[in-house]
Amino acid sequence: MGDQIQTLKGFRDFVGSQARKRKWLIKKIETVFERFGYEPLETPALEYESLLLGKYGTEADKLIYGFEDRGGRRVALRYDQTIPTARVISEYQNQLALPYKRYQMQQVWRADKPQKGRYREFLQCDADIIGTTAISAEAEILTLYAAIYTEIGLDSLKIKVNDREDLIKTLETTGIPLDKIFTVIQTIDKLDKKSKDEVRDELGQKGIESEVAKSLLSTLESQKVSEKLQKIISLAESMGVKKEIFTFSPTLARGLDYYTGMIFEGFIPEYKGGSVGGGGRYDKLLKQLVEVELPAVGFGLGFDRTLEAAEQLDKVPSLVTTALVLVTVFSPELTDKSIEVANYLRYNKVPTEIYLDSEKKLDRQLKYANKKDIPFVIIIGPEEVGKNIVKLKDMRSGDQKSIELSECISSILSR
Amino acid sequence: MGDQIQTLKGFRDFVGSQARKRKWLIKKIETVFERFGYEPLETPALEYESLLLGKYGTEADKLIYGFEDRGGRRVALRYDQTIPTARVISEYQNQLALPYKRYQMQQVWRADKPQKGRYREFLQCDADIIGTTAISAEAEILTLYAAIYTEIGLDSLKIKVNDREDLIKTLETTGIPLDKIFTVIQTIDKLDKKSKDEVRDELGQKGIESEVAKSLLSTLESQKVSEKLQKIISLAESMGVKKEIFTFSPTLARGLDYYTGMIFEGFIPEYKGGSVGGGGRYDKLLKQLVEVELPAVGFGLGFDRTLEAAEQLDKVPSLVTTALVLVTVFSPELTDKSIEVANYLRYNKVPTEIYLDSEKKLDRQLKYANKKDIPFVIIIGPEEVGKNIVKLKDMRSGDQKSIELSECISSILSR
Repeated sequence: MGDQIQTLKGFRDFVGSQARKRKWLIKKIETVFERFGYEPLETPALEYESLLLGKYGTEADKLIYGFEDRGGRRVALRYDQTIPTARVISEYQNQLALPYKRYQMQQVWRADKPQKGRYREFLQCDADIIGTTAISAEAEILTLYAAIYTEIGLDSLKIKVNDREDLIKTLETTGIPLDKIFTVIQTIDKLDKKSKDEVRDELGQKGIESEVAKSLLSTLESQKVSEKLQKIISLAESMGVKKEIFTFSPTLARGLDYYTGMIFEGFIPEYKGGSVGGGGRYDKLLKQLVEVELPAVGFGLGFDRTLEAAEQLDKVPSLVTTALVLVTVFSPELTDKSIEVANYLRYNKVPTEIYLDSEKKLDRQLKYANKKDIPFVIIIGPEEVGKNIVKLKDMRSGDQKSIELSECISSILSR
Repeated sequence: MGDQIQTLKGFRDFVGSQARKRKWLIKKIETVFERFGYEPLETPALEYESLLLGKYGTEADKLIYGFEDRGGRRVALRYDQTIPTARVISEYQNQLALPYKRYQMQQVWRADKPQKGRYREFLQCDADIIGTTAISAEAEILTLYAAIYTEIGLDSLKIKVNDREDLIKTLETTGIPLDKIFTVIQTIDKLDKKSKDEVRDELGQKGIESEVAKSLLSTLESQKVSEKLQKIISLAESMGVKKEIFTFSPTLARGLDYYTGMIFEGFIPEYKGGSVGGGGRYDKLLKQLVEVELPAVGFGLGFDRTLEAAEQLDKVPSLVTTALVLVTVFSPELTDKSIEVANYLRYNKVPTEIYLDSEKKLDRQLKYANKKDIPFVIIIGPEEVGKNIVKLKDMRSGDQKSIELSECISSILSR
């Protein structure tokens, strides 16, 4: 088999602590979704290819993993979660209570050129409210998004907001031709990464006269926040979000074509990897995709970047380990005693591992705990058995004490 | 798009309560894996096709979803979790602490003929211990498997155990030719679904003389449980499993070729959908697959069947709903009051939904709660605001009471 015993480029294994950290973050996010009463949704990895093709332009089509299945059907791997959700809404519209609030956390696949931070398989985390135009929906989406970062401990989150409708109006009144609106938006969207000159140059390459481009940028910069955005922010504030985290950003454009109202993007100032997600209102997309006339607003949270930010800012607890304690086995004759102790700890909900091979020396068992980052070890030798106690060793400090088993639980859990 | 706005045959959407029930079961299972100190593992959906092909025979090969990716590589969707785990062990062997105890819960894809209970995409739940021949590993695997069913509330679980080594010895001594051992095992494995006569007929078709077949079956039936199996069961007992759940089943064979020692299968007697999972020791497989000489023992839990059994036996709590309470909005002017109440409940970790559209009549809001199975509704009208109370309505009984907000929490959570 040779060189095939390896992961495909752009794909990742999550082993040990990396897998545990992901589980930690997934749980945090799910907790918040559920606290807000959002329902989980799961859709298949494969869909009819024709459902996916032509929805996001020809560039996106090239990134779809499509193939012919054994029954001769053209099928494709999930490219995003929006299209499958649209299909679900179309198929189940009579069963769903509206507004439908769902969250979805599944892998998507894109045949993109792999590079740092860009993978061919990654987890998307989306939440959307489908079926209401009430602006409290925008406010709730912002609140939900912010609440996730509070839950993770990333309190420094900043959210840039803008209104796509205002942006388009400005573009129209400045004299941008209708057929160039979206390509201009894509260029303007680069203003947080590129200089104004570079953006003006790109606009020029797209056929926008330099006077028009100049006037457009200065009009955008002097734009005042609209009454609607103010109301949304003030509602979000009453829902518990600190007002300071919001910045009105009249040049924020978001790449995707389909937004029709409020748009936003999240940033962690200390984290240099870029935006950690964003979203907005898209009232016409479901009609376009599946002929269902329902307004919608939602976000996609950047899972990999959020995890990276949480790691860099030390928000992932170091105790994200599977077992908190390893019960060692002193000798084959004392196996039963160790099993008894492990049972007691598990019964009391302490994540516990027992060393399975009583033939191995204690030294080797301690090394095992060390390699697996298990913070505590329990040793029960003949001396301990006689006195009905156990030896509890803290693997970080090296401290050890002989105590009653019942005392162990609080020592272990309080770490 | 027409008929493509639908799920592919053999694939499933999980919407609303179905998705919530799956989350409930996944959490239960993960809780137990973690209590035993097992590490999560995630591998990519796609692997090199050559890694997967030829490992489980030509029949299995036909079920693999393989295709050429955009870079001209032959790739294939995950068919099981054993081969990716073997690859991980080969790639990361220097980093992994042995024994490596991992669990993996990911989707697999098989281009099988869809039928009742058989899908083309389904979740596999595996746990394995890799790197020790100690029989306490068999005992722990049995204990872990049983503990999951206890956690779910499926206490009636029965486990059939046998030893593949003993079975093969019996086959050899009864005169089954070496090259027919595995095909005979596959026939014997059908003894719990087919009659003895049918099994004898099938053995005949496979070229086993009727005298030999007869003698084989009677030898198997009179087989006594080996000392090793007795030890394993007694160890599992000391780990907390009730001895009564085990049955020695000398004709239990398990379909897969690779087992080398203890094998087992789980059943819920009241559930008629068949075995809910099983596993065993496979000491030679990793050498065959990836040239790594490590012994292993593990199980695969049948997720769909286990969920079906839990539903049939009423073990899935009816309150597996996302929000426990809907805070209604009496009128646009009172929106802030409702938001305040929702904030308070969420802050106190009560999964809470707020009705977003203050223009909609209360009646419609109550219907929404009903359709979504939300058990409680809170109403805050002008009267309540004045007295600083809320109206809490139990949607099942129809009872409602006017109480202070702080009292609500216990009423809601105690249901």
